Amino acid sequence: MSAEYEVSKQNKVRQIREKAVYDKQTVHAVLDAGLIAHVGFIQDEQPLVVPMLYGRDGETIYLHGARKARIIRMLEQTDRASLNVTLVDALVIARSAFHSSMNYRSVTVFGSPTLVDDREAKLHALEIISEHMMPGRWAELREPLEKEIKMTGVIALTIDAASAKISKKPHPEDEEEDYATPVWAGILPLETAFTELVDADRLVEGVEPSAAVRALEGKRL
Amino acid sequence: MSAEYEVSKQNKVRQIREKAVYDKQTVHAVLDAGLIAHVGFIQDEQPLVVPMLYGRDGETIYLHGARKARIIRMLEQTDRASLNVTLVDALVIARSAFHSSMNYRSVTVFGSPTLVDDREAKLHALEIISEHMMPGRWAELREPLEKEIKMTGVIALTIDAASAKISKKPHPEDEEEDYATPVWAGILPLETAFTELVDADRLVEGVEPSAAVRALEGKRL
Repeated sequence: MSAEYEVSKQNKVRQIREKAVYDKQTVHAVLDAGLIAHVGFIQDEQPLVVPMLYGRDGETIYLHGARKARIIRMLEQTDRASLNVTLVDALVIARSAFHSSMNYRSVTVFGSPTLVDDREAKLHALEIISEHMMPGRWAELREPLEKEIKMTGVIALTIDAASAKISKKPHPEDEEEDYATPVWAGILPLETAFTELVDADRLVEGVEPSAAVRALEGKRL
Repeated sequence: MSAEYEVSKQNKVRQIREKAVYDKQTVHAVLDAGLIAHVGFIQDEQPLVVPMLYGRDGETIYLHGARKARIIRMLEQTDRASLNVTLVDALVIARSAFHSSMNYRSVTVFGSPTLVDDREAKLHALEIISEHMMPGRWAELREPLEKEIKMTGVIALTIDAASAKISKKPHPEDEEEDYATPVWAGILPLETAFTELVDADRLVEGVEPSAAVRALEGKRL
């Protein structure tokens, strides 16, 4: 297996190319860190962007929604889809507006979507998506009911091409003449993290959060 | 001015309709809270999703990139674009995988993109985008240089239609029979916040962060 995605017209990063990476490890790491993917599709010649839960299993990304959801029907019918997962890590506050920007991790994936209809394959995909969101939780829960499996639409997107763009500037890069100006510049990290568990109503008396759920507290994306 | 976006085939929310809102105040609030927009466009019949900085001025969303960037050229040439801004607020941890989900604020906007070429209009748009990211910063910085203005491509997207989907469940909603099971359930908030300013290198001696920049510390999205 190649360690890199082949660079083609499709996934070639055109802007700020020095930030572009095509190695699978980096692409996978960003996909695994994100919580939602923004999936693009075309409806009536109009581009649409829909945020979706997802999970990755090797070179396959699973997406799910209601079986009757438009996005599932559209993805079932098309052989072209793409998605982007982006995490913003910091503001890069420069001495000018032009050089101010953000640090981020961003991945774009191109693939052919297919509907997952086989019961076992669907269960596997649902486990992958659940484990992406809450590692270890799947084993703690009851099996999905048949009606739940039927009501859920699952799409498998095999990664045909992908690229990552990672910006992690330790300092803003300013115009040479601006360094002499008495304007503060620096980095302001943006932290995305789970806080503390809040009990639901109607809990069975004495039930405490499981290890899997506890492990999420304080976790940073 | 109407307080709501008209509901049409384009922006009608089809899934989980009880969460759909079309009032401008809610749509604007989500757009103003987000940091990046995922912009959808079509290239060679392929849907593409690109994360972009943005800012809102009334019913206009400004986007920017390098003047020569593909996304700017594509948006200049098309009369159809859409974008999505989503903020994830919590995991909703139910007693089953099926009912586990997320709380979020999500907005989809449809509009006709136009290139902003006039110098003054471009400066106004750049100020809107900068102020969206760092309120109060624009006035503290030098004017953009002519070369910077020329190198920047700005797109104005007038909001033709929009919808918001807000999920803020205080509790997971489980199958009636699952409430009797000794499985913990609840909410795990996800907090996205700026932390503390980090000095850049090469700062003029004695320069401290300005009020505008200080105000961002600890700010939650």
